[in-house]
Amino acid sequence: MSDCVAIVSGGMDSVTLLYYLVKVKQRQPAVISFKYGQKHVKEVALASEHVRLLGLTDHLVCDLSPMRELFKTSALVSSDLHVPTIEQVQGDSQPITYVPNRNMIFLSLAAAYAESHDANEVFYGAQRHDLYGYWDTTLDFLERLNHVYNLNRKTPIRIEAPFVTYSKGDILRQGFAIGVDYGKTWSCYEGSTTACGICPTCAERLAAFQEIGVPDPIPYQSN
Amino acid sequence: MSDCVAIVSGGMDSVTLLYYLVKVKQRQPAVISFKYGQKHVKEVALASEHVRLLGLTDHLVCDLSPMRELFKTSALVSSDLHVPTIEQVQGDSQPITYVPNRNMIFLSLAAAYAESHDANEVFYGAQRHDLYGYWDTTLDFLERLNHVYNLNRKTPIRIEAPFVTYSKGDILRQGFAIGVDYGKTWSCYEGSTTACGICPTCAERLAAFQEIGVPDPIPYQSN
Repeated sequence: MSDCVAIVSGGMDSVTLLYYLVKVKQRQPAVISFKYGQKHVKEVALASEHVRLLGLTDHLVCDLSPMRELFKTSALVSSDLHVPTIEQVQGDSQPITYVPNRNMIFLSLAAAYAESHDANEVFYGAQRHDLYGYWDTTLDFLERLNHVYNLNRKTPIRIEAPFVTYSKGDILRQGFAIGVDYGKTWSCYEGSTTACGICPTCAERLAAFQEIGVPDPIPYQSN
Repeated sequence: MSDCVAIVSGGMDSVTLLYYLVKVKQRQPAVISFKYGQKHVKEVALASEHVRLLGLTDHLVCDLSPMRELFKTSALVSSDLHVPTIEQVQGDSQPITYVPNRNMIFLSLAAAYAESHDANEVFYGAQRHDLYGYWDTTLDFLERLNHVYNLNRKTPIRIEAPFVTYSKGDILRQGFAIGVDYGKTWSCYEGSTTACGICPTCAERLAAFQEIGVPDPIPYQSN
């Protein structure tokens, strides 16, 4: 019987969150994942694998890719837009990798999933971005959104982001302490066979592994 | 070129809203409609018809019905749950007709639609419910939600509900003044050939027509 909902993409942050909920907090999350036309849709299969490895019973994969028109301005979705390098987005408060209102959409559907499971909490893997930014991963966003959900008259949902102040290095330290296999996570926005190593999320990921002095187990292009 | 987004279900409130935006406010809305497993999905075809009648160019129908599991606790969706009569919900602050987090979901997707059209406003047909209630149609909800959207760093979306303080009678008065054909709207939660006349939304609709002294042009079951 699930007692909360966790949004898990298959990336390193949300997979660590899932293990944290199960191993540290002894929770039984119902997991929700999303396809939305992202080039790196291969991440979703990894979310499913962790659900299986952890013996969880509820996993809903919502396919929003028929609505990918909504996200056409994002380089994560549009084939017309190149995924930028970290240098191209550094300091940008809303770079071209931003997916319009993605977190609000994911959290809204996750909150409905929680309501229909009579659960009161939705967890998501927002973390501190050091090099660029998104408005929908901040503490401000979280607080204001909870102020909305608090109005629900029967099942007020609480949105929780335990890693909202963590760097990616902090997340790795947490994950290694509880046995996360990062070889079974995917971050690269390109979604190719090997990770590109230069897109914003690869750059952040590689820097985090370097910070903690452990090699990243996933294969990178040799450039 | 669309200059805002309007959520239109095909019901009397949102169809009136659409005509109000076009005829009174001289706006050019991109329309978004939703299928979510509702028994009265026939409403969506009426939304399409008004888009055509008004000569609007953008209409996106989002099909969330593959995710209907999210809404299984609602009598509007679940075949196991009977649509209640108005007497059964009267005074209920969150009746069984409530669809989990529906308005947050619709508004989130509509906001993404606005962002991808470089528009700044999303309109929806929330109105004052006199006999029962939903938390996500109130002025409080609207204000707190706009406080969240205001954080967007490039395209802060404003959610607008011009009828939020209107009764259904007020909406009809507005609609008749600008030529809305209510024969081409659908409200009944049952979604049968004729409207049931006793479900909560039929009851509100019939009371509103009675209030303004005009017969409702849609066919009702003779009970």
